[in-house]
Amino acid sequence: GLVHIKNPHLDSMEEDVLYHLDLGTRTHNLPAMFGDIKFVCVGGSPNRMRAFAQFMHKQLGLAGDGEDLADICAGTDRYAMYRAGPVLSISHGMGIPSISIMLHELIKLLHHAKCRDVTIIRIGTSGGLGIEAGSVVITDMAVDSSFKPRFEQVVLDDVVVRSTDLDKDLAEELLACSKEIPDFPTLIGHTMCTYDFYEGK
Amino acid sequence: GLVHIKNPHLDSMEEDVLYHLDLGTRTHNLPAMFGDIKFVCVGGSPNRMRAFAQFMHKQLGLAGDGEDLADICAGTDRYAMYRAGPVLSISHGMGIPSISIMLHELIKLLHHAKCRDVTIIRIGTSGGLGIEAGSVVITDMAVDSSFKPRFEQVVLDDVVVRSTDLDKDLAEELLACSKEIPDFPTLIGHTMCTYDFYEGK
Repeated sequence: GLVHIKNPHLDSMEEDVLYHLDLGTRTHNLPAMFGDIKFVCVGGSPNRMRAFAQFMHKQLGLAGDGEDLADICAGTDRYAMYRAGPVLSISHGMGIPSISIMLHELIKLLHHAKCRDVTIIRIGTSGGLGIEAGSVVITDMAVDSSFKPRFEQVVLDDVVVRSTDLDKDLAEELLACSKEIPDFPTLIGHTMCTYDFYEGK
Repeated sequence: GLVHIKNPHLDSMEEDVLYHLDLGTRTHNLPAMFGDIKFVCVGGSPNRMRAFAQFMHKQLGLAGDGEDLADICAGTDRYAMYRAGPVLSISHGMGIPSISIMLHELIKLLHHAKCRDVTIIRIGTSGGLGIEAGSVVITDMAVDSSFKPRFEQVVLDDVVVRSTDLDKDLAEELLACSKEIPDFPTLIGHTMCTYDFYEGK
C-alpha cells in the first residue's frame, strides 16, 4: 500500500522542504520523479551507492550507459541519490543520526510521491561474531549497544523506545534468493547498531 | 604541548591506519604533512569546509590560488580535508557518531604528526533559544538531550560518562576577537547536542 505517515500536520503544510535531500513538494514533482519506485537501497558511502546503482542498471538490462547516472541530490553534499529503474540508491553517511535524517526525509518523500509497496533495505559492511569472514548476514532484528532489541530516543526530555523488529518475511525471501548464488555464505542474524564506531561496539 | 593519547597500545603498533581519512603511519609521512598544524576547524559539510579553507587561504595572504585546494582525503568519500597554512579544515558529516569517528582518527593523526599546541574548533549552524537570529554563539559547554553537561557512551555494556567542558579561556579569547567585528552579535552560551535532528532536539 501507500506509505503511511503518522504526523497529522504533514498534509496541511503548504510546502514540505526535504532539506538534506535538496528536494521539496513545491520545487519538484515528486510523484513524477519517484512514484514508480519499488526498492530503496541505502548505504553509507556515496561512491559505493553510485557503484550499486550502476550495478543495478546493468543487472536490470536498462537502456543507456549506466556509468554516468546523475546524482538526484547534486544540489547538496549531505547525501547522494541515484536511480536505476524502480531502484533508488541513497547514501546515508556514518552513524544513526546521519541515517535517521535521511530516512526521515526519505519516508516523507515516498509518501509525497504516492509510492506503493516499497521495500527499503540497508546494505553495508559490519564486523561479525562466530561467522565466517565474508558472510552475508540478513538482519532480522537490530540490537543496541546493550544487546537489547530496542531503539531509545530522548524526545523533549522523555525517553521514547521504538521497536527494532524488521520484516521477517523479507529476510526469508532474501535468504531464499541467496540459495541461487553459491559464492557467498548467507545467513539470517541480528545486527548490533551503536552510537560509536571505535568504543561503542 | 604535544597531543597526549591515553591508549597505551598505540606506540607499540607497527602501523596505525586512519581508515576513514585514508591516511596512515606507514603510507604517509604524517609529521612532514601535518607537523606544523596549529588550528583544526571542523564542520559538517565538505563543500563548506572547502569554502572555509579557501577563505582562510585568502585571510592569511598565502601564496597561490586558494581556489583549487587539494582534498587531502581524496582517496575516501567519508570526509574531506583541506589545509591553508597552519589551519586544517575537515568535514565531519552529520551527527555525533560521524564526528566521533573523525575526531578519533584526527587526534591520533595530530599525535603521530607530533603537532604542538593545537586548537580544535567546531564551526557550524544551530538553532538558538532566546537569542537574535544570526548570532554567533561561542560554546563554553555542550549539553545532551536531557540538558545535562555530559556525554554518555556504552562501552562493552558499561555506561561511561565523559565531561563536555570546553576550554573557557579559548571561549573568552574568541569573544574578545569578536569585538573587532561589529556585524555579528556574538555571545558565549551552551550548545545542545543530541542524537537526532528531527525529534531529539
